[in-house]
Amino acid sequence: MKELIIMKIGGSVITDKNKYMSADKESILRVAKEIANARKKKKFDLVIVHGAGSFGHMPVKKYNITNGIFSEMQKLGFAHTYHSCATLSHHLISVLLAEGVPAIVVPPLTILSHHNKKIKKFDTTVLSMLLKEGYVPILRGDVVLDDVIGGSISSGDEQVPYLAKKLNAKRVIYGVDVDGIFTADPKTKKDAKLIPFISNKNINSILSCLEEAKTQDVTGGMRGKITELLHYATIPIYIVNAKKRGNIQNILLGKKVKCTEIRLK
Amino acid sequence: MKELIIMKIGGSVITDKNKYMSADKESILRVAKEIANARKKKKFDLVIVHGAGSFGHMPVKKYNITNGIFSEMQKLGFAHTYHSCATLSHHLISVLLAEGVPAIVVPPLTILSHHNKKIKKFDTTVLSMLLKEGYVPILRGDVVLDDVIGGSISSGDEQVPYLAKKLNAKRVIYGVDVDGIFTADPKTKKDAKLIPFISNKNINSILSCLEEAKTQDVTGGMRGKITELLHYATIPIYIVNAKKRGNIQNILLGKKVKCTEIRLK
Repeated sequence: MKELIIMKIGGSVITDKNKYMSADKESILRVAKEIANARKKKKFDLVIVHGAGSFGHMPVKKYNITNGIFSEMQKLGFAHTYHSCATLSHHLISVLLAEGVPAIVVPPLTILSHHNKKIKKFDTTVLSMLLKEGYVPILRGDVVLDDVIGGSISSGDEQVPYLAKKLNAKRVIYGVDVDGIFTADPKTKKDAKLIPFISNKNINSILSCLEEAKTQDVTGGMRGKITELLHYATIPIYIVNAKKRGNIQNILLGKKVKCTEIRLK
Repeated sequence: MKELIIMKIGGSVITDKNKYMSADKESILRVAKEIANARKKKKFDLVIVHGAGSFGHMPVKKYNITNGIFSEMQKLGFAHTYHSCATLSHHLISVLLAEGVPAIVVPPLTILSHHNKKIKKFDTTVLSMLLKEGYVPILRGDVVLDDVIGGSISSGDEQVPYLAKKLNAKRVIYGVDVDGIFTADPKTKKDAKLIPFISNKNINSILSCLEEAKTQDVTGGMRGKITELLHYATIPIYIVNAKKRGNIQNILLGKKVKCTEIRLK
């Protein structure tokens, strides 16, 4: 078996979060080319999970479907959101195919369902079959069915830890729009420092720092992510800036990149 | 439980079979409006299976993937075909959503796999869940994984009989580009006569007529279909012209339409 890498690509990397259904075509093209180049240089299996960015957040807000599906309008909103997230996958996959990457989208709704906003069932059989045949399965943050509240949101950040464990990934990569995890929000605080390595030694101080910052997502959108990550951080996890040219290709190839690496025992 | 209808919409209805990836937008809009209107007038559950038309046939031919996936180029062709068929679903669903139909696409690859070009597994759980919540699941003719030859083609005509049985459908509708099953090809033979009703009484003479015509698909593309249909024709099956305004709406509402009705015991 080849090494399996699970790579999340943040919605902030491939969409313009402030515009409705606006894909960042330049970013998508760069990321796709880097994935294609890495695959030409090294053999590895890859699952990509992309965030929905503005393609998800905006219809979810518009149709008010964060807390369940109870009206006909919300039901239509659920379908609109699913379609909107599919549109973003479609953009990404068009470019991946053009670069020679045999990408196959598997909408999470078809294999994952929720029980009150938490994973109830996540059947990864088709992903394993696709990997075995040499394809690159694509998942995404999207709406899924929920047996308590009708429908809810499954984020890429929810899916990645589950996939890493179930599919026995060797590495996990989070491509985001900052250089990694910081001591404060690097977008607003000049004195924010990148934390290059998180291990059992410094994890507690980092967690209490995150706890203090509860009211604000001061770590550049990484607070929710890191607490999810800690549940499975026995394999190397890299949080890298996917907006910077070369980072995705280099991290896929196992090269050194400015980032946060998490490795716990 | 509401009555469940399985409706196939032929690729010839919603695409231009002679042009690469060319959707027939006028037909799609008309069909979508008729489905939306019928749903406003009557409560019923609906699963739609659309053919791929030029969105499927052309990439399948271009990449030569009819008989399996054995090369890297075929693998990329498989992914291209999947993407191309998804593009057609995307067109159709955009219009259905705009008409207020909560359509959710479930690509067959995610729930169906083949063993040497025949259905090996077809897990309809997610379709039942979607129906229960009031959505309209959309499937399509498309590529699926095959555990013998890597990948093969699952036609809508293959899926419909299986779905009808498994989901306990009450009626099946085939929307095609002719008025039903004819004694000869209505597109080329002036003396072709529509067969309005197929029952146990006339089925044998029709089958032998079809047998004689083996070398040519003289019944307007219906020969393969009818032999598939006979395996499950214990519920009413309607073959109607979906190119003619009003037919889809009327047949969904249970009204009389010029068509072929099949009812066997």
